Amino acid sequence: MQKAKNLDAADPLAPLRAAFFIPDGMIYFDGNSLGAMPKAALGIVSEATRQEWATDLITSWNKAGWFELPTAYGDRLAPVIGASAGEVVVCDSTSINLYKALFAGLSLRPQRHVIVAEKSSFPTDLYMVEGALKARPDLEIRLVEDLLGAIDESVAVVLVNHVDYRSGKVAAVEAITARAHEIGAVVIWDLCHSAGIMPVGLNAAGADLAIGCTYKYLNGGPGAPAFVYCAAKHLPHVSQPLSGWWGHAQPFAFDTGFTPDAGIRKFLCGTQPILSFRALAAGLDIITGLDMAQVRAKSQSLTALFIELVEAQVPALALASPKDAGQRGSQVSFSHPNAYPIVQALIERGVVGDFRMPNVLRFGFSPLYLSHMDLVRAVEILADIMEKGTWAAPRFQAGGAVT
Amino acid sequence: MQKAKNLDAADPLAPLRAAFFIPDGMIYFDGNSLGAMPKAALGIVSEATRQEWATDLITSWNKAGWFELPTAYGDRLAPVIGASAGEVVVCDSTSINLYKALFAGLSLRPQRHVIVAEKSSFPTDLYMVEGALKARPDLEIRLVEDLLGAIDESVAVVLVNHVDYRSGKVAAVEAITARAHEIGAVVIWDLCHSAGIMPVGLNAAGADLAIGCTYKYLNGGPGAPAFVYCAAKHLPHVSQPLSGWWGHAQPFAFDTGFTPDAGIRKFLCGTQPILSFRALAAGLDIITGLDMAQVRAKSQSLTALFIELVEAQVPALALASPKDAGQRGSQVSFSHPNAYPIVQALIERGVVGDFRMPNVLRFGFSPLYLSHMDLVRAVEILADIMEKGTWAAPRFQAGGAVT
Repeated sequence: MQKAKNLDAADPLAPLRAAFFIPDGMIYFDGNSLGAMPKAALGIVSEATRQEWATDLITSWNKAGWFELPTAYGDRLAPVIGASAGEVVVCDSTSINLYKALFAGLSLRPQRHVIVAEKSSFPTDLYMVEGALKARPDLEIRLVEDLLGAIDESVAVVLVNHVDYRSGKVAAVEAITARAHEIGAVVIWDLCHSAGIMPVGLNAAGADLAIGCTYKYLNGGPGAPAFVYCAAKHLPHVSQPLSGWWGHAQPFAFDTGFTPDAGIRKFLCGTQPILSFRALAAGLDIITGLDMAQVRAKSQSLTALFIELVEAQVPALALASPKDAGQRGSQVSFSHPNAYPIVQALIERGVVGDFRMPNVLRFGFSPLYLSHMDLVRAVEILADIMEKGTWAAPRFQAGGAVT
Repeated sequence: MQKAKNLDAADPLAPLRAAFFIPDGMIYFDGNSLGAMPKAALGIVSEATRQEWATDLITSWNKAGWFELPTAYGDRLAPVIGASAGEVVVCDSTSINLYKALFAGLSLRPQRHVIVAEKSSFPTDLYMVEGALKARPDLEIRLVEDLLGAIDESVAVVLVNHVDYRSGKVAAVEAITARAHEIGAVVIWDLCHSAGIMPVGLNAAGADLAIGCTYKYLNGGPGAPAFVYCAAKHLPHVSQPLSGWWGHAQPFAFDTGFTPDAGIRKFLCGTQPILSFRALAAGLDIITGLDMAQVRAKSQSLTALFIELVEAQVPALALASPKDAGQRGSQVSFSHPNAYPIVQALIERGVVGDFRMPNVLRFGFSPLYLSHMDLVRAVEILADIMEKGTWAAPRFQAGGAVT
């Protein structure tokens, strides 16, 4: 308790909490699923609706820079993930961007036909790989346990999840990228569970392609547009098949034939959802002002304290995340045969985490709005639920899980 | 003048104008590019931000039905385009949905490899066809002047724009569909410029697939999510490669392999932009209460009067749209060598239409918020600009066009 107070007192990020709307009485451990709302988002969205749409109408395409939002926001996001301006574009959904990235990777290695991914990838990643195979039946998909060992001369594209969505384990993306490059393969990093909570060194690692979402730790709002990164060195050479008019070199010339933009805009396809874009601005305003090393330090401090408190007070839960903070993203998972009702009982008490099949309690830690004292309170409630067996009540048994 | 007043007095849709926010002094002829804002949208978006995102957070996936919005909104849109519940899903962008529809059509005709489209299609449609070819080099693309004459036994998929974006000409979609079916081909209707301004008879014509946007005549907001239609008879048999987790039969089971939803959800891919979805609700509320025959009658009355007024008062403009109202969508285009500066001079006076390469002035007519008297005033201003040569001022010469 005193330790948590001391950690909070010394926390340079503590003032950021005031920039977020956190419902009264809620301790929110689902920032890794849907980030909390930056207070500024409400006004920005309302203004975009009232002024940009209702009042300025089509003139907003120029006046409000709607057409440039994907690259403008991409440029702002770039330093957060270790990229340069002109290498990131915000658009569409993560799944759709992965499809683009897969074909972009294949376009760089036209003589190769193999895509390698981990079996434990976030499932939609695997579904999109399957989709690529449906469009191009000559591809071969290899789902493996160990990426490093699976990269051989036949491999065109390697897909790696930077942080595992279930366990929170950090993958050796740099080593995997180095190994892939040795053998001439291209790597796609999925940053969904790392962007915004730890330094991501795309350019430092000589990365090729990356994708990720903005509605988790970047606090962009529900279903906020996702992003694609392509290293500058590859931009002149890559292509992707979702070649809509926003990716055209001269979108307003209305040419019959497609000529891709020379830069990162070639990853754009159709018209983007402007109101959802605007909501993201508030989250970007916050994250782009931060030192990601400081964000990472607080994230590790939070997850370490949480593990310590749970292990001391709720020994029935088995840690399912790496014990070593260096190997851990900003989430902590525990397994328990009754994970589902326990999560439901916690939610009823205002402690919002989530359940993952088959038996995982998953807690996400946003260093931007959680305090160490939040964790003390949450673990007290968890311990109380376990001690009293509250979770066994019938009302917590039924129903499914939501991402 | 009196004629216009009489037409307005007899207009059963006149009261709808009060449901829209139209900026003071503006006569808006760009509802075919970005529809005006329904007044209710502002409150709906603000509530979605404040209550659904900020307060209810992840519980909104169930509580606010976020996960079901694509099909819920699709079911509401269905009758507007002559479809049944379960055949329409709202999601992603028009370009992306066209990619899905192209592959869905190809999946129904696995032995055929030819896609036929009109050279005059909206360019992004052609770019997406090119994209499909990039993913599947065995395809053959035929761009033609005359669709009806181009459909032979080798054709898998025919793509037709229901209303031409430049001229406003209505295509013979029923005849094209009948011809395609005789010869075993599948047809995709692009409804971007017809949905919301005229009856669209998808099921009556035995249509196969359709796509369209909601930000034009459906007033869904800037970059509002688009839609896909697939006839119920095809749903068990089609597949498409953008197979993300929202299209999975059991999205929350987190299976490693993809099993498509049995119904229209198989056209979904990734997480949808919820705030942009919510904005669309207001537009859907308005359109779904209307008799589309009445909407079409007013649209034809508006475009006929506009042509009559322009031909009488501004003979220098040459009509570039069909004279026959039955052949015309809800837009009227004129050609003039100085189309671009004339459009700019009109905008300065509050008459907002748009320019299309190379020499077209395009006026779109939303029957939901334009009156006949609006047209009288607009043509007076147009005549004044032409008479005085205002458009020749240097400030109107530079710059490009926006959709």
